[in-house]
Amino acid sequence: MHKIKGGICAIEGVRANGIKEEKKGLTVILGEGEAAGVFTKNKIKAAPLILTEKNLSSTGKLRGIIANSGSANAFTGKEGYEDAVKMARLLAEEIDSPVEEIGVASTGVIGERIDFDWIRKKFGEVFLKISNTEDASKMANRGIMTTDTREKEFAIEYKGVKIGGIAKGSGMIAPDMATMLSFIYTDAKFSSKILRRSLMRAVDKSFNMLSIDGDMSTNDTVLLTATGDFSMREEDFQRALDEVCLELARKIALDGEGATKYVEVRVKGAKKRGDARIAAKSVVNSSLVKTAIFGGDPNWGRIIAALGYSGAEIDGDKISLFLGNPDEDQNTVILNGEVLRLDEERFREILSKDKIIIEVDLGLGREEAISFGCDLSYDYVKINGAYRT
Amino acid sequence: MHKIKGGICAIEGVRANGIKEEKKGLTVILGEGEAAGVFTKNKIKAAPLILTEKNLSSTGKLRGIIANSGSANAFTGKEGYEDAVKMARLLAEEIDSPVEEIGVASTGVIGERIDFDWIRKKFGEVFLKISNTEDASKMANRGIMTTDTREKEFAIEYKGVKIGGIAKGSGMIAPDMATMLSFIYTDAKFSSKILRRSLMRAVDKSFNMLSIDGDMSTNDTVLLTATGDFSMREEDFQRALDEVCLELARKIALDGEGATKYVEVRVKGAKKRGDARIAAKSVVNSSLVKTAIFGGDPNWGRIIAALGYSGAEIDGDKISLFLGNPDEDQNTVILNGEVLRLDEERFREILSKDKIIIEVDLGLGREEAISFGCDLSYDYVKINGAYRT
Repeated sequence: MHKIKGGICAIEGVRANGIKEEKKGLTVILGEGEAAGVFTKNKIKAAPLILTEKNLSSTGKLRGIIANSGSANAFTGKEGYEDAVKMARLLAEEIDSPVEEIGVASTGVIGERIDFDWIRKKFGEVFLKISNTEDASKMANRGIMTTDTREKEFAIEYKGVKIGGIAKGSGMIAPDMATMLSFIYTDAKFSSKILRRSLMRAVDKSFNMLSIDGDMSTNDTVLLTATGDFSMREEDFQRALDEVCLELARKIALDGEGATKYVEVRVKGAKKRGDARIAAKSVVNSSLVKTAIFGGDPNWGRIIAALGYSGAEIDGDKISLFLGNPDEDQNTVILNGEVLRLDEERFREILSKDKIIIEVDLGLGREEAISFGCDLSYDYVKINGAYRT
Repeated sequence: MHKIKGGICAIEGVRANGIKEEKKGLTVILGEGEAAGVFTKNKIKAAPLILTEKNLSSTGKLRGIIANSGSANAFTGKEGYEDAVKMARLLAEEIDSPVEEIGVASTGVIGERIDFDWIRKKFGEVFLKISNTEDASKMANRGIMTTDTREKEFAIEYKGVKIGGIAKGSGMIAPDMATMLSFIYTDAKFSSKILRRSLMRAVDKSFNMLSIDGDMSTNDTVLLTATGDFSMREEDFQRALDEVCLELARKIALDGEGATKYVEVRVKGAKKRGDARIAAKSVVNSSLVKTAIFGGDPNWGRIIAALGYSGAEIDGDKISLFLGNPDEDQNTVILNGEVLRLDEERFREILSKDKIIIEVDLGLGREEAISFGCDLSYDYVKINGAYRT
């Protein structure tokens, strides 16, 4: 498996473009084939998700995606739904496609209608310059950015098949997806049903283990379209797709709102897989753990407290806790329930790194899970204290 | 029902004192009678909780409480448990009580042993000046403060019976209790069994609906001792105890780490009580709602998103949302799913107040719940980025 360049445009035939003007953005992507989507579990679901989910379940195909940033088109009633349909129709008419084979996505402020006039006005401009270049993938990525500070794309080649994706997301990122959009393309050939199964598995290990602030968005969307006709074993495809989703999830964590450090929590030794997952999420979600990491404060008791309230089965006498990157200078804090005397200086040094890995062995079984997140800084408060203004 | 002065010392015969020296504190309270406790649900439970829970379940009585701040005596192994026993013994021997009738509580850093030498050295000094004055209640309160910025006490008289309590807590305060200690006394006469039932009910409506940062402590403890022999109907006692616990919970919310605003979320119209509770907690817990309130940003969509991911049954078409104090200038944002055009200036004015009330009517039933919390400010990050240092 090796990394390749080009984001979604690493896939032959995928054409894309995007535009960002102040808080508004528009992205258009063309790529035809069997397709699948995974959407937020928030009960307040934005209009474009309702439409795209309906489209996918009736046709199992996508010919293109149109997405905007600035307004989330969530909690916007019937008019909001009509706006989403209008977006789909705009692209469908241009490429002579059934409206049911268009995916629509939105991100931005909840409760405000999209500026459809702006979208219509800009659509021609964006569509005109649609292309299959590296730059096109980046432009498409830029069109859906909100508080994101950088583009997030990743593509790999594995056994002759390519998978490439772009993603946006930096806040309202929670256990179970995130305020995130991700569009993924592959030149492998699979049915919509298999794509959906693979995508759900991959999302479960990656985007669903991502937390910036514990808030779950109304707009989370991941779309996967298989445009080519390379054949591949499903297990191999799963492996490659997992890798793309994991890498995009890490990129979102790295770009978390106000983040100064990337945090990864690896829990092993759980009796059940569900225990490993909730334990890992509980630690990565804890505001106290996040502020301690921001401040470089070796307050490991907060990790233990977060494990204790996670709901996972825990036995204090069996826990081991390691801090730092295992490839470099991992530090054992607790071994089988025994707290080791720590060299605070060394501890602080580990916490001063950009990448903090918290490894927990619950000592109860063989299940494991990894969660992704970042620290909680002054800038998170700043960014979110005046998001709309 | 009317408010009276004196905190726990409003109750005749209750004697108290405390000392705080930099990060260490010690509190001693005497008051004899049937007693009950409610403790954290965190699976990593601090040593003093294990001891006090055991004592209460064997005797149902307390003669006194000894509590320290600075170290939480959590995750401290067998030595930690021995330290808690030593604290109990210190007080038991002084007042010639069975060790099993002493309550012990701790708050502070997790994973560090208490400084028992300091406690032993200070104990005599604290005990010597124990008294039943207003000031004594405040001193006892001070001995258990950590990041708290002020004392929290409340006492009422109702139908001839008095109930008074003190509380500490300002961070690691979560759904289901908080890093909080609260010691409550009454001159009513009830069995330990009834006290426990009443206390659990009162805690459920108050401390369990309190959230500062979503982190649940290893040390949460509420102890209730009935020292007198006034008789009262259980329902009346419940009403009065509810009021004391609610008021103490509000005081903790007001003093949340870095808090600039008090936030109360009132959810009504839920189909089930559990739905009302998780919906109210979800909103008060949301980092995005909290930062929006800190910044005075009228971004009500975040409230809707938090309701949507709460797990409660929700129908977007039936939700109504009101902001502001209903006694003053409440503003209707959503009425039966319809978003009203808002006067943003007025909206900002409401958000500039010290006390923000978010009222939600789910429009599905008759159950309701109230949660308590505060905004999320730069100072929260500052306080928690370097708590130990």
